[in-house]
Amino acid sequence: MEKGNVTEDFLYNRIAERFIGQIETNILKSGDKLLSVRALSREQGVSISTAYKAYAELENRGFIEARAKSGYVVRHIYKKNEKQKLTNIAPLQNETTNVDELIRRVYETLTQESLVRLSLASPSSKLIPEAKLNKAMAEALRKSPTSCTQYENIQGNANLRKQIAKHAFNWNGQITEHDIVTTQGCMEALVFCLKAVTEPGDTVAIESPTYFGIFNVMKSLGLNVLEIPVDPETGVDIEYLENAMKNVKVKACLFVPNFCNPVGALMPDERKKQLVDLLTVNNIPLIEDDIYGEMYFGKSRPRTCKSFDREGIVMLCSSVSKTLAPGYRVGWCIPGKHLDKIISLKLMHTVSAATPTQSAIALFFETGRYDLHLRNLRKTLHLQYLQYTQLITDHFPAGIRISRPGGGYVLWIELDNRIDSFRLFSQALVENVSIAPGQIFTTDGRYSNFIRISIGEPITEEIESKIKILGQLIQDYNKQPAANEAD
Amino acid sequence: MEKGNVTEDFLYNRIAERFIGQIETNILKSGDKLLSVRALSREQGVSISTAYKAYAELENRGFIEARAKSGYVVRHIYKKNEKQKLTNIAPLQNETTNVDELIRRVYETLTQESLVRLSLASPSSKLIPEAKLNKAMAEALRKSPTSCTQYENIQGNANLRKQIAKHAFNWNGQITEHDIVTTQGCMEALVFCLKAVTEPGDTVAIESPTYFGIFNVMKSLGLNVLEIPVDPETGVDIEYLENAMKNVKVKACLFVPNFCNPVGALMPDERKKQLVDLLTVNNIPLIEDDIYGEMYFGKSRPRTCKSFDREGIVMLCSSVSKTLAPGYRVGWCIPGKHLDKIISLKLMHTVSAATPTQSAIALFFETGRYDLHLRNLRKTLHLQYLQYTQLITDHFPAGIRISRPGGGYVLWIELDNRIDSFRLFSQALVENVSIAPGQIFTTDGRYSNFIRISIGEPITEEIESKIKILGQLIQDYNKQPAANEAD
Repeated sequence: MEKGNVTEDFLYNRIAERFIGQIETNILKSGDKLLSVRALSREQGVSISTAYKAYAELENRGFIEARAKSGYVVRHIYKKNEKQKLTNIAPLQNETTNVDELIRRVYETLTQESLVRLSLASPSSKLIPEAKLNKAMAEALRKSPTSCTQYENIQGNANLRKQIAKHAFNWNGQITEHDIVTTQGCMEALVFCLKAVTEPGDTVAIESPTYFGIFNVMKSLGLNVLEIPVDPETGVDIEYLENAMKNVKVKACLFVPNFCNPVGALMPDERKKQLVDLLTVNNIPLIEDDIYGEMYFGKSRPRTCKSFDREGIVMLCSSVSKTLAPGYRVGWCIPGKHLDKIISLKLMHTVSAATPTQSAIALFFETGRYDLHLRNLRKTLHLQYLQYTQLITDHFPAGIRISRPGGGYVLWIELDNRIDSFRLFSQALVENVSIAPGQIFTTDGRYSNFIRISIGEPITEEIESKIKILGQLIQDYNKQPAANEAD
Repeated sequence: MEKGNVTEDFLYNRIAERFIGQIETNILKSGDKLLSVRALSREQGVSISTAYKAYAELENRGFIEARAKSGYVVRHIYKKNEKQKLTNIAPLQNETTNVDELIRRVYETLTQESLVRLSLASPSSKLIPEAKLNKAMAEALRKSPTSCTQYENIQGNANLRKQIAKHAFNWNGQITEHDIVTTQGCMEALVFCLKAVTEPGDTVAIESPTYFGIFNVMKSLGLNVLEIPVDPETGVDIEYLENAMKNVKVKACLFVPNFCNPVGALMPDERKKQLVDLLTVNNIPLIEDDIYGEMYFGKSRPRTCKSFDREGIVMLCSSVSKTLAPGYRVGWCIPGKHLDKIISLKLMHTVSAATPTQSAIALFFETGRYDLHLRNLRKTLHLQYLQYTQLITDHFPAGIRISRPGGGYVLWIELDNRIDSFRLFSQALVENVSIAPGQIFTTDGRYSNFIRISIGEPITEEIESKIKILGQLIQDYNKQPAANEAD
């Protein structure tokens, strides 16, 4: 019997989620037959229509398939690997590595379209609703009295700020459009925040491992980096930070509490609160990069540190670059008490951000298309995450460890500790596939036996074959005696 | 008789230009009757059709009008004012002025649409071919395989760079697309150039007076400013600079050789060459802001310092913000030997510039629409320059001096030296008109009896009435005894 006060949507989604949980934990295995729709309806006490929708949802998301005569069966997706927990912090290597040079060589591969770029941490263009976005752009130009040719408001397009403020409700944000400054992507937001709260020579705490773009920024601003280890389950190590603060004057922190790149850790709410409390007491600004926050695989949008911020010390930065259109360069910053400084930095650096792209994205939010798109994208990404994990488990040698991110675009993979992943990167390039080697995610040569693999592209035969090739390279690498290394 | 090897276009344009010269220098006065078309044809030895086209061109550009029974007569446009030569460098005022505060207050007025903003140095939206630009945007989205949603090439959109390189031919540039980096407007280009060649604490030579946005940039980068006077006829004072260099270590120069803002001086070619030679010998980079270079009132596109640069010391910066669409934030930099540094600064700060706007502007260039638009805009601006000068001469008190720029968007006006133009700015705001007071164009309180007036808006009755009001305020200001100043 349907319960009168619960919607059908809620019911079939709940049933689908339960099945997914069972598939992920191997309670339901690939090839297992499921109950008939009628039997499921009886078992769950829901209508036939609700039971059917639950299976349709699972089929739609790629977890099950309908087979002639067998009914619905679980697809070959994912094997649980109990040994996946990553090493928390890898040992330092003896060799000194020129990280700049490595990063430059990895960047070069990012725009080479001839490569299968498993090094890119962004959505495939196949997952972007381009026609609808084009429509939003056409609408934006039509609606503007000056066709978006004139300077935009310095703080940012008013409608876009209103939409971002509304959206912040999803992460428990109590924000108005007056709290927001738009920027040219998340990167510009991060740079402005760093400039606002540091001077050359200051030390900034970041996660380790962390996104390699950050190191160039720090260097260019003359900042020192203090690397704080990330735990795959609980995020950045707050106790480690607290201890380090006793010896080093930390001027600011730059963390990615939701699905940090590359580890993918989701910091639990109580840890977020603890971090904000610690930094508030010490009056240290927290630059919170929330660029992956919308890309959760779980049931609900994770909260942000900003949502625990009472004193305005958290400067949240985000963009639509990982969710919708990196090419639009639309990002924003919610800088708390540093608002005026960010506005004047923006005015000085770029006068204002581009009018057409901001207006188009604002309309895309306003019409509800962004939310709809995010719902679809999250489902697709979750499936791709499981598919990539499956493929890697199948084709990489036994003994590797794969991260289990709660969201985001990447898998962080620990290989045999004799492997130099930059050498692996070079070998893979010969095979027309690019990966991100672990060394570029730190300043000190750690993570040389790690690689980062993107899950942003839908699986194709080509990608499957490249993952097989990568597995083979790793397998063969282990067979080679160390003395043979003449790469 | 037509000369066979000369086109009709050339002939009628040459005739029209001669008439304009005579009108500007008061040889032909307002109300003077012109020859009939037939008589002009005989006098000039051209066909009736060519003579007619010459008059049509003059009528089209607003210099003459056809009157019943009188034929063509000169319109009321412009009176030559022999006393217009500006004071080269104004004396320092005794009062100390908080320039930051003044600049902030002027900026606030720039986005207040209720004001008649004679403080804005950019084209009126009425002068922008919005429909054609919208078409270029639609085309760009349609032509792109990913609807411009993906990251653009880090150095910049390839087609846009190709078009800019082609266009550089107009200023004698021998440039390829590989020499160019696109940026978010000219301002970002200037900031990147300064960051590339200076360190905090360095001294950079700039023009005096100069665009007020520069002071914030310098301050934020920790740079010291050395102000070099500008001569209205010959541009920045090279001898003054050379002398100053004996006492101060100048790390870079940032000049606007073509129609500097606010003076409007056009540096002659031989002076440009002399400047480049001086800086080459001393290995000092020249950041050349050429944002007004296309907005010439004369016969041909002025050359740039870059065109005299043999060693790659000149870093040319420009954009379409003053010619087409400030809201698009499409600018560029031709950084000579500092190319790699600019690319890595761009990568670090903003990853890449927006794809849709770059692609649309590239198509606008490629289809020839940009050149066509520039031709029209130049004619309109030239006329507006003459009209504004006429109105100001008519309505401002005798004894003022008005700049005679060879191009650009602004008039620089010297008032009675007892006038405090910031006070005048405040009085004008009450009358809903904004001007740019002279004090904000320097760091040291000079130019307090100067104002800058924009000529970017086509004259309307409202603008005419505001100019009358400004004239009255100036007139009344002089009547008030100094002791009365309780503003």
